[in-house]
Amino acid sequence: MTTSLSLDHSGLGVLSQEECLRRIRTARVGRVAFVEDGEPVILPVNHGLDGNSVIFRTASGSKLIAAENEVPVAFEVDAFDADRRMGWSVVIRGAASVVEDPTEVSRLATLGVSPWADLVERTNWVRIRAYSLTGREVVHPAR
Amino acid sequence: MTTSLSLDHSGLGVLSQEECLRRIRTARVGRVAFVEDGEPVILPVNHGLDGNSVIFRTASGSKLIAAENEVPVAFEVDAFDADRRMGWSVVIRGAASVVEDPTEVSRLATLGVSPWADLVERTNWVRIRAYSLTGREVVHPAR
Repeated sequence: MTTSLSLDHSGLGVLSQEECLRRIRTARVGRVAFVEDGEPVILPVNHGLDGNSVIFRTASGSKLIAAENEVPVAFEVDAFDADRRMGWSVVIRGAASVVEDPTEVSRLATLGVSPWADLVERTNWVRIRAYSLTGREVVHPAR
Repeated sequence: MTTSLSLDHSGLGVLSQEECLRRIRTARVGRVAFVEDGEPVILPVNHGLDGNSVIFRTASGSKLIAAENEVPVAFEVDAFDADRRMGWSVVIRGAASVVEDPTEVSRLATLGVSPWADLVERTNWVRIRAYSLTGREVVHPAR
């Protein structure tokens, strides 16, 4: 399958938008990056996909503060196979916001997104509205 | 083992510095985040650990430009087990720079760090000098 992908400037295969969304939907963990005091922060989250937007739950803390300020974020999922030296990565860039509407919150609660880290309750829902979606895959043509 | 970890404000176990370095050393893939035009970017890399700094190779592109400007970066490795709802994540925050010294470059070339994506040669070495190192693990005490 991978041999049919077109390549980007760095020799990586380019995944279609549909394939990117499929991989976000099936991944159980993603990583959200945002800028805090001018520096990048990366934190893993258990996420879900609601239409074309990524959603996750968070407690109070830097992820919530970022979402309250609707800062630009990046969200990444990936998978790797060290034996075959293969892997892929899908990145959403978008704006994070806290879901405030109680009807929306009730609906999101039915989607089965439940943080594995459950010693502190993660009651706030954050939505990332994507404005760009890109996916790349390591390609090893038959030699 | 995890039950002996102290917990942070969000109920995650705190990994020791030695444990963080060990997990970075054994991980085959990490993710580097940096800020480009005010927005966060996340890209996966095959990395190595040289003393306490993370090194990786890159072609021309945004990762190289970030390193040439010695911007602050975050670097993350993680692993997850969906069946057990377990996982951990280690994050380095530091400054990236391009390794220019030919003696250094020759030495790094002996460390076995080789990008899986090899259709375009990745000739530039980037070093991340850490100024903070943190690791967290999902903890499920016996119930």
